[in-house]
Amino acid sequence: MSPRGRRPGAPDTRAAIVDAARPLFADLGFSGTSMRKVAAEAGVDPALVHHYFDSKEDLFLASLDVPFDPRMLLAVVAEGGPDGAGERLLTTFFSIWDDEANRLPLLTIARGVLEPGGQRLLRDGFIGVVIVPVVSALGVDQPERRAALLASQIIGLVLTRYVLEVEPLASAPPELLVATYAPVVQRYLTGDLP
Amino acid sequence: MSPRGRRPGAPDTRAAIVDAARPLFADLGFSGTSMRKVAAEAGVDPALVHHYFDSKEDLFLASLDVPFDPRMLLAVVAEGGPDGAGERLLTTFFSIWDDEANRLPLLTIARGVLEPGGQRLLRDGFIGVVIVPVVSALGVDQPERRAALLASQIIGLVLTRYVLEVEPLASAPPELLVATYAPVVQRYLTGDLP
Repeated sequence: MSPRGRRPGAPDTRAAIVDAARPLFADLGFSGTSMRKVAAEAGVDPALVHHYFDSKEDLFLASLDVPFDPRMLLAVVAEGGPDGAGERLLTTFFSIWDDEANRLPLLTIARGVLEPGGQRLLRDGFIGVVIVPVVSALGVDQPERRAALLASQIIGLVLTRYVLEVEPLASAPPELLVATYAPVVQRYLTGDLP
Repeated sequence: MSPRGRRPGAPDTRAAIVDAARPLFADLGFSGTSMRKVAAEAGVDPALVHHYFDSKEDLFLASLDVPFDPRMLLAVVAEGGPDGAGERLLTTFFSIWDDEANRLPLLTIARGVLEPGGQRLLRDGFIGVVIVPVVSALGVDQPERRAALLASQIIGLVLTRYVLEVEPLASAPPELLVATYAPVVQRYLTGDLP
Protein backbone atom coordinates (compact mmCIF):
# COMPACT_ATOMS: atom_id res chain seq x y z
CA MET A 1 0.00 0.00 0.00
CA SER A 2 2.95 2.33 0.52
CA PRO A 3 3.38 4.83 -2.31
CA ARG A 4 7.14 4.66 -1.67
CA GLY A 5 7.29 0.89 -2.45
CA ARG A 6 7.22 -0.95 -5.79
CA ARG A 7 4.59 0.39 -8.11
CA PRO A 8 2.51 -1.79 -10.40
CA GLY A 9 1.23 -0.51 -13.74
CA ALA A 10 2.95 1.35 -16.53
CA PRO A 11 6.10 3.12 -15.27
CA ASP A 12 5.05 6.35 -16.98
CA THR A 13 1.68 6.57 -15.26
CA ARG A 14 3.04 8.40 -12.24
CA ALA A 15 4.88 10.86 -14.50
CA ALA A 16 1.73 11.38 -16.56
CA ILE A 17 -0.22 12.20 -13.40
CA VAL A 18 2.42 14.70 -12.28
CA ASP A 19 2.50 16.25 -15.76
CA ALA A 20 -1.28 16.64 -15.67
CA ALA A 21 -1.21 18.06 -12.15
CA ARG A 22 1.38 20.79 -12.76
CA PRO A 23 -0.69 23.07 -15.05
CA LEU A 24 -3.81 22.47 -12.96
CA PHE A 25 -2.06 23.66 -9.81
CA ALA A 26 -0.72 26.63 -11.77
CA ASP A 27 -4.12 27.55 -13.27
CA LEU A 28 -6.48 26.69 -10.43
CA GLY A 29 -4.22 27.11 -7.40
CA PHE A 30 -3.71 24.52 -4.71
CA SER A 31 -7.21 24.77 -3.24
CA GLY A 32 -8.90 24.74 -6.66
CA THR A 33 -7.19 21.54 -7.78
CA SER A 34 -8.54 18.12 -6.75
CA MET A 35 -7.17 14.60 -7.15
CA ARG A 36 -10.29 13.89 -9.23
CA LYS A 37 -9.59 16.77 -11.64
CA VAL A 38 -6.00 15.60 -12.02
CA ALA A 39 -7.19 12.05 -12.77
CA ALA A 40 -9.60 13.35 -15.43
CA GLU A 41 -6.86 15.50 -16.99
CA ALA A 42 -4.42 12.58 -17.03
CA GLY A 43 -7.10 10.21 -18.37
CA VAL A 44 -6.70 7.72 -15.52
CA ASP A 45 -8.94 6.36 -12.78
CA PRO A 46 -8.95 8.52 -9.61
CA ALA A 47 -7.97 5.42 -7.62
CA LEU A 48 -4.70 5.34 -9.52
CA VAL A 49 -3.87 8.91 -8.43
CA HIS A 50 -4.51 7.88 -4.84
CA HIS A 51 -2.35 4.81 -5.41
CA TYR A 52 0.67 6.92 -6.26
CA PHE A 53 0.04 9.87 -3.93
CA ASP A 54 -1.24 9.70 -0.36
CA SER A 55 -2.51 13.26 -0.45
CA LYS A 56 -2.93 16.33 -2.60
CA GLU A 57 0.04 17.81 -0.71
CA ASP A 58 2.25 14.91 -1.88
CA LEU A 59 1.07 15.36 -5.46
CA PHE A 60 1.68 19.10 -5.27
CA LEU A 61 5.21 18.66 -3.94
CA ALA A 62 5.95 16.11 -6.69
CA SER A 63 4.72 18.62 -9.27
CA LEU A 64 7.22 21.20 -7.97
CA ASP A 65 9.96 18.86 -9.17
CA VAL A 66 12.51 19.70 -6.47
CA PRO A 67 15.08 17.04 -5.58
CA PHE A 68 14.07 16.87 -1.91
CA ASP A 69 10.95 16.97 0.24
CA PRO A 70 10.53 20.54 1.53
CA ARG A 71 8.67 19.10 4.49
CA MET A 72 12.00 17.94 5.88
CA LEU A 73 12.18 21.56 7.04
CA LEU A 74 9.22 20.82 9.27
CA ALA A 75 10.90 17.90 10.98
CA VAL A 76 14.18 19.75 11.59
CA VAL A 77 12.55 22.93 12.83
CA ALA A 78 9.77 21.33 14.86
CA GLU A 79 11.72 18.57 16.59
CA GLY A 80 13.83 20.98 18.63
CA GLY A 81 10.91 23.09 19.85
CA PRO A 82 10.65 26.88 19.72
CA ASP A 83 14.13 27.64 21.10
CA GLY A 84 16.63 27.98 18.27
CA ALA A 85 13.99 27.26 15.62
CA GLY A 86 15.11 30.24 13.55
CA GLU A 87 18.72 29.08 13.51
CA ARG A 88 17.76 25.51 12.57
CA LEU A 89 15.45 26.70 9.80
CA LEU A 90 18.17 28.91 8.32
CA THR A 91 20.85 26.23 8.57
CA THR A 92 18.58 23.84 6.67
CA PHE A 93 17.63 26.55 4.18
CA PHE A 94 21.25 27.32 3.26
CA SER A 95 22.26 23.65 3.11
CA ILE A 96 19.56 23.19 0.46
CA TRP A 97 20.07 26.41 -1.50
CA ASP A 98 23.86 26.37 -1.45
CA ASP A 99 23.84 22.88 -2.99
CA GLU A 100 24.36 23.35 -6.73
CA ALA A 101 22.18 20.30 -7.50
CA ASN A 102 19.16 22.03 -6.01
CA ARG A 103 19.83 25.53 -7.28
CA LEU A 104 18.39 25.30 -10.80
CA PRO A 105 15.01 23.69 -9.98
CA LEU A 106 14.64 26.05 -7.02
CA LEU A 107 15.44 29.11 -9.14
CA THR A 108 12.87 27.98 -11.69
CA ILE A 109 10.25 28.01 -8.96
CA ALA A 110 11.50 31.34 -7.63
CA ARG A 111 11.24 32.93 -11.07
CA GLY A 112 7.62 31.76 -11.17
CA VAL A 113 6.92 34.35 -8.51
CA LEU A 114 6.16 36.89 -11.24
CA GLU A 115 3.93 34.71 -13.43
CA PRO A 116 0.25 34.41 -12.48
CA GLY A 117 0.41 30.60 -12.27
CA GLY A 118 3.65 30.67 -10.34
CA GLN A 119 2.15 33.18 -7.95
CA ARG A 120 -0.70 30.84 -7.08
CA LEU A 121 1.71 27.96 -6.65
CA LEU A 122 3.85 29.96 -4.27
CA ARG A 123 1.01 31.57 -2.36
CA ASP A 124 -1.54 28.77 -2.02
CA GLY A 125 0.88 25.91 -2.43
CA PHE A 126 4.35 26.53 -1.12
CA ILE A 127 3.39 28.85 1.70
CA GLY A 128 0.29 26.85 2.61
CA VAL A 129 1.73 23.35 2.22
CA VAL A 130 5.30 23.91 3.42
CA ILE A 131 5.65 27.06 5.52
CA VAL A 132 2.38 27.21 7.49
CA PRO A 133 2.80 23.61 8.78
CA VAL A 134 6.37 24.42 9.91
CA VAL A 135 5.09 27.34 11.93
CA SER A 136 2.03 25.50 13.24
CA ALA A 137 4.21 22.64 14.46
CA LEU A 138 5.86 25.06 16.89
CA GLY A 139 2.53 25.55 18.66
CA VAL A 140 2.61 29.34 18.36
CA ASP A 141 -0.27 31.78 17.85
CA GLN A 142 -1.17 33.30 14.46
CA PRO A 143 0.61 30.68 12.30
CA GLU A 144 -0.65 32.15 9.00
CA ARG A 145 0.61 35.61 9.89
CA ARG A 146 3.96 34.24 11.05
CA ALA A 147 4.25 32.16 7.89
CA ALA A 148 3.65 35.25 5.75
CA LEU A 149 6.27 37.26 7.66
CA LEU A 150 8.75 34.39 7.36
CA ALA A 151 8.00 34.12 3.64
CA SER A 152 8.61 37.85 3.21
CA GLN A 153 12.15 37.49 4.55
CA ILE A 154 13.00 34.16 2.91
CA ILE A 155 11.72 35.18 -0.55
CA GLY A 156 13.70 38.43 -0.30
CA LEU A 157 16.80 36.53 0.79
CA VAL A 158 16.48 34.16 -2.16
CA LEU A 159 16.14 37.03 -4.62
CA THR A 160 18.92 39.13 -3.09
CA ARG A 161 21.51 36.37 -2.65
CA TYR A 162 20.74 33.93 -5.48
CA VAL A 163 18.92 35.90 -8.20
CA LEU A 164 20.18 39.49 -7.97
CA GLU A 165 23.48 38.36 -6.37
CA VAL A 166 23.81 41.53 -4.33
CA GLU A 167 27.17 41.79 -2.56
CA PRO A 168 28.27 41.21 0.11
CA LEU A 169 25.26 38.92 0.64
CA ALA A 170 25.90 36.78 -2.44
CA SER A 171 29.35 35.60 -1.38
CA ALA A 172 28.86 35.58 2.39
CA PRO A 173 29.48 32.20 4.09
CA PRO A 174 26.23 30.56 5.20
CA GLU A 175 27.30 30.48 8.87
CA LEU A 176 27.51 34.29 8.88
CA LEU A 177 24.09 34.59 7.25
CA VAL A 178 22.55 32.15 9.73
CA ALA A 179 23.85 34.31 12.60
CA THR A 180 22.71 37.51 10.88
CA TYR A 181 19.18 36.39 10.06
CA ALA A 182 18.49 34.08 13.05
CA PRO A 183 17.10 36.79 15.39
CA VAL A 184 14.77 37.99 12.63
CA VAL A 185 13.48 34.55 11.69
CA GLN A 186 13.12 33.66 15.39
CA ARG A 187 11.03 36.82 15.88
CA TYR A 188 8.73 35.88 13.04
CA LEU A 189 8.41 32.26 14.25
CA THR A 190 7.98 32.70 17.99
CA GLY A 191 8.38 36.36 19.07
CA ASP A 192 5.74 38.66 20.48
CA LEU A 193 4.13 40.45 17.53
CA PRO A 194 2.26 43.76 17.78
CA MET B 1 21.24 76.82 -14.55
CA SER B 2 18.79 74.81 -12.44
CA PRO B 3 17.61 71.63 -14.19
CA ARG B 4 14.26 72.10 -12.48
CA GLY B 5 13.67 75.52 -14.13
CA ARG B 6 12.57 76.38 -17.66
CA ARG B 7 14.39 74.40 -20.26
CA PRO B 8 15.48 75.80 -23.61
CA GLY B 9 15.63 73.64 -26.73
CA ALA B 10 13.19 71.14 -28.13
CA PRO B 11 10.73 69.98 -25.46
CA ASP B 12 11.32 66.34 -26.41
CA THR B 13 15.08 66.47 -25.92
CA ARG B 14 14.91 65.58 -22.26
CA ALA B 15 12.55 62.68 -23.01
CA ALA B 16 14.85 61.50 -25.81
CA ILE B 17 17.80 61.48 -23.40
CA VAL B 18 15.82 59.47 -20.83
CA ASP B 19 14.65 57.05 -23.52
CA ALA B 20 18.25 56.55 -24.64
CA ALA B 21 19.45 56.12 -21.06
CA ARG B 22 16.96 53.44 -20.02
CA PRO B 23 18.25 50.54 -22.19
CA LEU B 24 21.87 51.56 -21.53
CA PHE B 25 21.36 51.30 -17.77
CA ALA B 26 19.60 47.98 -18.30
CA ASP B 27 22.31 46.56 -20.56
CA LEU B 28 25.46 48.05 -19.02
CA GLY B 29 24.39 48.54 -15.42
CA PHE B 30 24.68 51.77 -13.50
CA SER B 31 28.47 51.76 -13.30
CA GLY B 32 28.90 50.82 -16.97
CA THR B 33 26.75 53.69 -18.23
CA SER B 34 28.18 57.20 -18.66
CA MET B 35 26.57 60.53 -19.47
CA ARG B 36 28.76 60.56 -22.59
CA LYS B 37 27.43 57.17 -23.78
CA VAL B 38 23.86 58.34 -23.21
CA ALA B 39 24.55 61.50 -25.23
CA ALA B 40 25.96 59.44 -28.10
CA GLU B 41 22.99 57.08 -28.03
CA ALA B 42 20.53 59.99 -27.99
CA GLY B 43 22.47 61.80 -30.74
CA VAL B 44 22.93 64.96 -28.67
CA ASP B 45 25.88 66.89 -27.32
CA PRO B 46 27.09 65.66 -23.89
CA ALA B 47 26.69 69.21 -22.58
CA LEU B 48 22.95 68.91 -23.22
CA VAL B 49 22.73 65.81 -21.01
CA HIS B 50 24.49 67.74 -18.24
CA HIS B 51 22.12 70.62 -18.84
CA TYR B 52 19.10 68.48 -18.03
CA PHE B 53 20.63 66.25 -15.38
CA ASP B 54 23.03 67.31 -12.63
CA SER B 55 24.39 63.81 -12.20
CA LYS B 56 24.22 60.26 -13.47
CA GLU B 57 22.15 59.45 -10.36
CA ASP B 58 19.53 62.02 -11.44
CA LEU B 59 19.44 60.59 -14.95
CA PHE B 60 19.14 57.06 -13.59
CA LEU B 61 16.24 57.99 -11.31
CA ALA B 62 14.49 59.74 -14.20
CA SER B 63 14.90 56.59 -16.29
CA LEU B 64 13.12 54.55 -13.59
CA ASP B 65 10.02 56.63 -14.35
CA VAL B 66 8.60 56.62 -10.81
CA PRO B 67 6.36 59.54 -9.80
CA PHE B 68 8.58 60.61 -6.88
CA ASP B 69 12.25 60.95 -5.99
CA PRO B 70 13.27 57.82 -4.04
CA ARG B 71 15.97 59.89 -2.38
CA MET B 72 13.27 61.53 -0.28
CA LEU B 73 13.70 58.35 1.77
CA LEU B 74 17.21 59.53 2.56
CA ALA B 75 16.07 62.86 3.93
CA VAL B 76 13.30 61.37 6.07
CA VAL B 77 15.41 58.57 7.46
CA ALA B 78 18.65 60.50 7.91
CA GLU B 79 17.26 63.71 9.42
CA GLY B 80 16.12 62.00 12.62
CA GLY B 81 19.38 60.15 13.24
CA PRO B 82 19.76 56.44 14.03
CA ASP B 83 16.99 56.25 16.68
CA GLY B 84 13.70 55.29 15.08
CA ALA B 85 15.22 55.18 11.59
CA GLY B 86 13.59 51.81 10.88
CA GLU B 87 10.14 53.08 11.80
CA ARG B 88 10.55 56.24 9.69
CA LEU B 89 11.82 54.27 6.72
CA LEU B 90 8.86 51.87 6.88
CA THR B 91 6.30 54.66 7.34
CA THR B 92 7.66 56.36 4.21
CA PHE B 93 7.82 53.06 2.35
CA PHE B 94 4.14 52.23 2.97
CA SER B 95 2.98 55.78 2.23
CA ILE B 96 4.58 55.42 -1.22
CA TRP B 97 3.57 51.82 -1.99
CA ASP B 98 0.02 52.05 -0.63
CA ASP B 99 -0.66 55.01 -2.94
CA GLU B 100 -2.41 53.62 -6.02
CA ALA B 101 -0.79 56.24 -8.25
CA ASN B 102 2.64 54.82 -7.50
CA ARG B 103 1.74 51.15 -7.51
CA LEU B 104 1.87 50.37 -11.22
CA PRO B 105 5.23 51.98 -12.08
CA LEU B 106 6.73 50.47 -8.93
CA LEU B 107 5.40 47.01 -9.75
CA THR B 108 6.87 47.30 -13.24
CA ILE B 109 10.28 47.87 -11.67
CA ALA B 110 9.73 45.06 -9.17
CA ARG B 111 8.86 42.62 -11.95
CA GLY B 112 12.18 43.53 -13.59
CA VAL B 113 13.86 41.67 -10.77
CA LEU B 114 13.73 38.50 -12.85
CA GLU B 115 15.01 39.93 -16.13
CA PRO B 116 18.78 40.31 -16.60
CA GLY B 117 18.51 44.04 -17.38
CA GLY B 118 16.13 44.63 -14.51
CA GLN B 119 18.48 42.78 -12.21
CA ARG B 120 21.34 45.14 -13.02
CA LEU B 121 19.08 48.15 -12.54
CA LEU B 122 17.99 46.91 -9.14
CA ARG B 123 21.40 45.73 -7.99
CA ASP B 124 23.74 48.41 -9.26
CA GLY B 125 21.24 51.18 -9.54
CA PHE B 126 18.46 51.08 -7.03
CA ILE B 127 20.44 49.52 -4.20
CA GLY B 128 23.55 51.56 -4.98
CA VAL B 129 21.89 54.88 -5.73
CA VAL B 130 18.99 54.82 -3.27
CA ILE B 131 19.55 52.35 -0.45
CA VAL B 132 23.29 52.57 0.25
CA PRO B 133 23.18 56.39 0.62
CA VAL B 134 20.26 56.07 3.08
CA VAL B 135 22.30 53.71 5.21
CA SER B 136 25.53 55.69 4.86
CA ALA B 137 23.76 58.87 5.97
CA LEU B 138 23.19 57.24 9.36
CA GLY B 139 26.92 57.07 9.95
CA VAL B 140 26.93 53.32 10.68
CA ASP B 141 29.58 50.72 9.87
CA GLN B 142 29.31 48.33 6.88
CA PRO B 143 26.78 50.39 4.88
CA GLU B 144 26.90 48.04 1.84
CA ARG B 145 26.18 45.00 3.97
CA ARG B 146 23.37 46.77 5.83
CA ALA B 147 21.91 47.97 2.52
CA ALA B 148 21.88 44.40 1.18
CA LEU B 149 20.17 43.09 4.34
CA LEU B 150 17.62 45.90 4.18
CA ALA B 151 17.02 45.15 0.48
CA SER B 152 16.49 41.46 1.28
CA GLN B 153 13.61 42.33 3.62
CA ILE B 154 12.09 45.15 1.57
CA ILE B 155 12.14 43.22 -1.71
CA GLY B 156 10.53 40.24 0.03
CA LEU B 157 7.91 42.49 1.59
CA VAL B 158 7.08 44.01 -1.81
CA LEU B 159 6.68 40.58 -3.38
CA THR B 160 4.70 39.07 -0.51
CA ARG B 161 2.29 41.98 0.07
CA TYR B 162 1.91 43.57 -3.38
CA VAL B 163 2.77 40.87 -5.94
CA LEU B 164 1.85 37.52 -4.37
CA GLU B 165 -0.74 39.19 -2.10
CA VAL B 166 -0.20 36.68 0.69
CA GLU B 167 -2.74 37.04 3.50
CA PRO B 168 -2.87 38.34 6.16
CA LEU B 169 0.04 40.55 4.99
CA ALA B 170 -1.73 41.84 1.89
CA SER B 171 -4.66 43.42 3.72
CA ALA B 172 -2.90 44.40 6.96
CA PRO B 173 -3.04 48.13 7.83
CA PRO B 174 0.31 49.85 7.28
CA GLU B 175 0.58 50.92 10.94
CA LEU B 176 0.55 47.28 12.01
CA LEU B 177 3.20 46.40 9.44
CA VAL B 178 5.39 49.32 10.50
CA ALA B 179 5.27 48.05 14.10
CA THR B 180 5.89 44.46 12.98
CA TYR B 181 8.87 45.17 10.74
CA ALA B 182 10.44 48.13 12.59
CA PRO B 183 12.67 46.06 14.93
CA VAL B 184 13.97 44.07 11.95
CA VAL B 185 14.69 47.10 9.76
CA GLN B 186 16.25 48.88 12.74
CA ARG B 187 18.55 45.87 13.29
CA TYR B 188 19.68 45.94 9.68
CA LEU B 189 20.21 49.72 9.73
CA THR B 190 21.93 50.25 13.05
CA GLY B 191 22.09 47.03 15.12
CA ASP B 192 25.17 45.03 16.08
CA LEU B 193 25.74 42.48 13.33
CA PRO B 194 27.73 39.26 13.76
